Amino acid sequence: MKRKIRMGMIGGGKDAFIGAVHRIAANMDGLVELCCGAFSVDPEIGLESGRSLFLSDDRIYGNYNELFDKESKMPADKRIDFVTIVTPNFAHFEPAMLALDHGFNVVIEKPMTITLDEAKQLHKKVEETGLTLCLTHTYSGYPMVKQAKQMVKAGELGEIRKVIVEYPQGWLSSLSEREGNAQAAWRTDPSKSGKSGSMGDIGTHAAHLAEYITGLEITKICADLNIVVPGRAIDDDGNVLLKFDNGSNGVLIASQIAAGEENALKIKVYGEKGGLEWHQMEPNTLIVKWTDQPAQIYRAGNNYLGSFAKHNARTPGGHPEGYLEAFANIYRNFAQTLDAKLNGEQPTAEMLDFPTSKDGVRGMAFIENVVNSSNSDKKWSDNKL
Amino acid sequence: MKRKIRMGMIGGGKDAFIGAVHRIAANMDGLVELCCGAFSVDPEIGLESGRSLFLSDDRIYGNYNELFDKESKMPADKRIDFVTIVTPNFAHFEPAMLALDHGFNVVIEKPMTITLDEAKQLHKKVEETGLTLCLTHTYSGYPMVKQAKQMVKAGELGEIRKVIVEYPQGWLSSLSEREGNAQAAWRTDPSKSGKSGSMGDIGTHAAHLAEYITGLEITKICADLNIVVPGRAIDDDGNVLLKFDNGSNGVLIASQIAAGEENALKIKVYGEKGGLEWHQMEPNTLIVKWTDQPAQIYRAGNNYLGSFAKHNARTPGGHPEGYLEAFANIYRNFAQTLDAKLNGEQPTAEMLDFPTSKDGVRGMAFIENVVNSSNSDKKWSDNKL
Amino acid sequence: MKRKIRMGMIGGGKDAFIGAVHRIAANMDGLVELCCGAFSVDPEIGLESGRSLFLSDDRIYGNYNELFDKESKMPADKRIDFVTIVTPNFAHFEPAMLALDHGFNVVIEKPMTITLDEAKQLHKKVEETGLTLCLTHTYSGYPMVKQAKQMVKAGELGEIRKVIVEYPQGWLSSLSEREGNAQAAWRTDPSKSGKSGSMGDIGTHAAHLAEYITGLEITKICADLNIVVPGRAIDDDGNVLLKFDNGSNGVLIASQIAAGEENALKIKVYGEKGGLEWHQMEPNTLIVKWTDQPAQIYRAGNNYLGSFAKHNARTPGGHPEGYLEAFANIYRNFAQTLDAKLNGEQPTAEMLDFPTSKDGVRGMAFIENVVNSSNSDKKWSDNKL
Amino acid sequence: MKRKIRMGMIGGGKDAFIGAVHRIAANMDGLVELCCGAFSVDPEIGLESGRSLFLSDDRIYGNYNELFDKESKMPADKRIDFVTIVTPNFAHFEPAMLALDHGFNVVIEKPMTITLDEAKQLHKKVEETGLTLCLTHTYSGYPMVKQAKQMVKAGELGEIRKVIVEYPQGWLSSLSEREGNAQAAWRTDPSKSGKSGSMGDIGTHAAHLAEYITGLEITKICADLNIVVPGRAIDDDGNVLLKFDNGSNGVLIASQIAAGEENALKIKVYGEKGGLEWHQMEPNTLIVKWTDQPAQIYRAGNNYLGSFAKHNARTPGGHPEGYLEAFANIYRNFAQTLDAKLNGEQPTAEMLDFPTSKDGVRGMAFIENVVNSSNSDKKWSDNKL
Repeated sequence: MKRKIRMGMIGGGKDAFIGAVHRIAANMDGLVELCCGAFSVDPEIGLESGRSLFLSDDRIYGNYNELFDKESKMPADKRIDFVTIVTPNFAHFEPAMLALDHGFNVVIEKPMTITLDEAKQLHKKVEETGLTLCLTHTYSGYPMVKQAKQMVKAGELGEIRKVIVEYPQGWLSSLSEREGNAQAAWRTDPSKSGKSGSMGDIGTHAAHLAEYITGLEITKICADLNIVVPGRAIDDDGNVLLKFDNGSNGVLIASQIAAGEENALKIKVYGEKGGLEWHQMEPNTLIVKWTDQPAQIYRAGNNYLGSFAKHNARTPGGHPEGYLEAFANIYRNFAQTLDAKLNGEQPTAEMLDFPTSKDGVRGMAFIENVVNSSNSDKKWSDNKL
Repeated sequence: MKRKIRMGMIGGGKDAFIGAVHRIAANMDGLVELCCGAFSVDPEIGLESGRSLFLSDDRIYGNYNELFDKESKMPADKRIDFVTIVTPNFAHFEPAMLALDHGFNVVIEKPMTITLDEAKQLHKKVEETGLTLCLTHTYSGYPMVKQAKQMVKAGELGEIRKVIVEYPQGWLSSLSEREGNAQAAWRTDPSKSGKSGSMGDIGTHAAHLAEYITGLEITKICADLNIVVPGRAIDDDGNVLLKFDNGSNGVLIASQIAAGEENALKIKVYGEKGGLEWHQMEPNTLIVKWTDQPAQIYRAGNNYLGSFAKHNARTPGGHPEGYLEAFANIYRNFAQTLDAKLNGEQPTAEMLDFPTSKDGVRGMAFIENVVNSSNSDKKWSDNKL
Repeated sequence: MKRKIRMGMIGGGKDAFIGAVHRIAANMDGLVELCCGAFSVDPEIGLESGRSLFLSDDRIYGNYNELFDKESKMPADKRIDFVTIVTPNFAHFEPAMLALDHGFNVVIEKPMTITLDEAKQLHKKVEETGLTLCLTHTYSGYPMVKQAKQMVKAGELGEIRKVIVEYPQGWLSSLSEREGNAQAAWRTDPSKSGKSGSMGDIGTHAAHLAEYITGLEITKICADLNIVVPGRAIDDDGNVLLKFDNGSNGVLIASQIAAGEENALKIKVYGEKGGLEWHQMEPNTLIVKWTDQPAQIYRAGNNYLGSFAKHNARTPGGHPEGYLEAFANIYRNFAQTLDAKLNGEQPTAEMLDFPTSKDGVRGMAFIENVVNSSNSDKKWSDNKL
Repeated sequence: MKRKIRMGMIGGGKDAFIGAVHRIAANMDGLVELCCGAFSVDPEIGLESGRSLFLSDDRIYGNYNELFDKESKMPADKRIDFVTIVTPNFAHFEPAMLALDHGFNVVIEKPMTITLDEAKQLHKKVEETGLTLCLTHTYSGYPMVKQAKQMVKAGELGEIRKVIVEYPQGWLSSLSEREGNAQAAWRTDPSKSGKSGSMGDIGTHAAHLAEYITGLEITKICADLNIVVPGRAIDDDGNVLLKFDNGSNGVLIASQIAAGEENALKIKVYGEKGGLEWHQMEPNTLIVKWTDQPAQIYRAGNNYLGSFAKHNARTPGGHPEGYLEAFANIYRNFAQTLDAKLNGEQPTAEMLDFPTSKDGVRGMAFIENVVNSSNSDKKWSDNKL
């Protein structure tokens, strides 16, 4: 790369959780430079946030309209290359569309939008503009997840037969949204978060992970969404039976009332010849199990790994990388892809390996389908786009 | 106890798996003495089996009719107190009924019978005779499972909200029943095993464990049973959504095609205040998780445990007990209960803590209900007796 | 086997820890029958103990002299084959010598005696009589320890370079010997336990395990023994640097003041090509590490294991066996060896795989050498017999 | 902070391992800006390295003399605040002294110098200049290490009695220094690395960690250093018995020939009331063990942690942070300390919590003392400065 890729940010003012994570991810490898932002609907907070990030006042904008307007008029060697959208779900679509209209590439938090219809429009716009949209399904950024995908793709497990993915968290075990927890407040408010709580916030990660690793698509679902904590408006818990397009079956569990759990995403995939198991909370280990041989412990940072795992690591084995590095992998791959495009080169398969608007459409469809299935007396529903 | 409790065995000839396990469990604590048996339908194998167990030829019987006939005529100080039935499922009911008719107590492998109707008849017979029937749901014999139950009952987790129980095995990943595996052969043959394969063999263990620990009953189910390996006649895999009688939800997964898994029964239970997690393959550890404090590692053999965990252990912390000791706990509790009854004493709650014909009826109902649910287009079915 | 092997017991009255463990181990496989005992120096306790084990009064002896006298006069088809000695260390030598003099084989707790000199005499007596003495270094009875030994012997790790064995316990963190803990009382009393506390009680297990797995002998030591809890007469903690006879080095740590530890014996062995790691508290797993391939998880009960691991297991993979089964393996191998000898057959290598008086001499030498080394200003001392 | 802290780098050209790690650590939180560097003794590689980091050519220097000369003449608002020295050990001292002479603060890799004498001179210079020197003992940057230290300091474990710290790696199991591994080449060359290999490279980390967590000082040592792989000039393996200034004992093991190990630093600390255990490869977990209660699993990112653990984390529980974040914590604390000093403020205790030249002197003394002890026939040597 000849220069750093230039980034603007929408949302992510001080006290926001995920905005700070995006900035760390963008900073980590020194390939991306934060140049401007519209950090808050409150202009004072926005200004204060931008200054704390050492931005000059003229690139701290009051809102995203102003950002797009002014940045698009900047000279080419100052203008941002992309904008990261880290607002609550309901405020994803409009700035993303505007960004693309103004010629900016986009990084956007999941779920991509607040409705499936928005997601489809956004995906169409991406295709029309030829710009790049990256959806931050963080967990697909881990090197051992990529190793799993590469091994499945190479047929090492044989045909896939079963997938169990569970994502238990405990942070919504009480009505924390009424006790001043800002994160909890918007995520449990359907007007800001969407039709589903647990499935929108974490179930989509689990579904994406299952499809990402196996290369299969979920075609049928049977969902049971629950409001466990009384007084809540949308599901804080849910279980879904799955069928995949090769006929295999699966289970997806997402819960935010699993008291005492932190962020315990786990996946198990079983094929004809063997199985694999990955836990997000010990992400540098991938257990690969065989029917007739001892199980193996694949570990990040080692020479025996495939090209995708290697491309997405920074340190040798035994120097644990974590959530922020997984996030940074998404940013690095996105930045390398933009750089290649800027230079008229073809990005490698490893660079292009980040979630896109296609995944965003699938995620929004999953949310809508799961909610509909849960409301239905019928066992199986199509997971249709 | 003034004397050893005397045992006969039906089934369990040489090469049988579970018969040998029952004998080890019965031997372990020196409270039970194997006195006779009808070990095989093949008289030669039966004789050879009995001799290898150091029985005299006059107490090695050709079949169970002969056993009941002759043993019931023995003098009181030689006659067996109970019979253990370890034949394949289809051959449980008849000898069990006969045993009770002849005044013998019974230990019986799960599932208790091959139909729900048989199970109900057998349960009725137990109640009528006042004799004791013990069903070997082994996993409820582990001390840390008992600790979990005692903690839930004491309300330490608050009201239970969610249960996830999974039981993956990989040993039926290929058609081993056609490759000379005798265990596989009868377990995948519905005429010997019953309506369900995976749910009958291991799903019932998982369902029992969930109900045992939580003290709740499964009231509604939504099942998806699968024949994954082509050519098999009954399910080798299945997933079930659950509702419990307090309104909480759950998931039960049982699979025998989870390639590379050994016998990986795991359960997670979540309440209002915390959760707990137990893995059968590391059975001396119970993880207890809290919403606002560090999780705790409860370990078998320690002073801080409750009365049930203590009653069911033989060694201090760090001296691992396992599957055979869990099995032996069931035998020991059963033997102590018989001894108390023989002496006109009331067994303690700890002694009486073994599965009975009531659990056997619930298990058979679960199998029938799950099979029916799987065949239905309706999402939810009652888990009715 | 044509009949059960007949056993007598010296020591192990009610409330004794290790006596009960020996009985469970002997019972488990139904190959050994407890026929008599001299369970306590207190005749009433002895009688009560024997009766609780369902022995007839005429085979409950007041002391071991009486036992040997009367048992040796029994008819051949009633007389015991061997005696198990589970008294405190100081009371091992005399009954063991007497047993051999009376023609009885011996199972004996470790450390074999209370002095090296006694150990040498006993070993000489064993050799002279041609009888069999089995020393219960329990941890060498685990199937995965045997697998480790077999893999090292086959050269799978290449030449061994380094061994780290640690054995931390926490049960002597306070002066529990003055608070009514009978186990603690004799084990911390040099007149009953010997010159060393921690090294005698658990350090010898660690040293045996290191030599057993590697097939190497410890030739030089540099010891630092400590009395950590004030008021104690002998070491409750110690660290030893090791040299082995092939030039490799090692570390042995044994502590009974490692607060919060249960019985956390662990060993790591490193060779030219790979390493292996085994934890007693998760004994069914053996981690095998390679320099250029993923580590492997060897698990007890699987087909891919060697003949020794298979011979010492009862259940398929995923049905955890533990400490009592490891103990029972020693008894089973000993019983099978006696049976072969009684029938004029050659026991297999797998049967003969239990510790003997040779290990007992090495253990007592280790204790004396370690105590002397700890008292010396010189760095290295020979670990001489 | 009003502005980013400005950094220069000495060493760390392309292909260097640790230089890249320092840059990621410095980048991560967006508080530090890399402004210049003298990256290589080879001017072409230096230039190429600087350009790949997006530096302008006028701040890519041919050597560190030029860097100090030119940077010290820069205007105050462009001049770097500190220099990071990531050259091999033999090339630490001179640039560090020069940096301080020119008024620049210093971040320096461990071991601080190549001799104890150099370390003392450097420490004296730091004290004379009043500038800040930060030594990157990375492992003390982990939040759960800080939690351990804070709990020990608060007396939660009672008086410390024993410390076991082990640091096994396997990467030098063969003579990789002769197979083109540049890292191996200089680290096994005493003229570049110093008197000790394994103890200098990783033993110093282990010793620092033990002293950091316990707040104790190692006062006596008994060392056994080994050259295990034939043909090597300095130790690739070693074991050290320890005594601490409160009379407690310990063991330190450092090996680079532990075949199959990655970077498996572990520490166990035992006090009167309990113990704690931390593994670098699963760094977000701290196990705290108690004599009479279940052990606890302290996890990074949770509310129940102390102020130091909280200050050194970026994400909530279950979002694993790793080695790079631990490294970044050192940089962030250092940067916050510099910022406070620049603004005439007193840094908080949490900011000041990074290793300094005092630790560097202790590390170099440890290396020299361990080498001397290993060469001595005497058991104990003083760990004197």
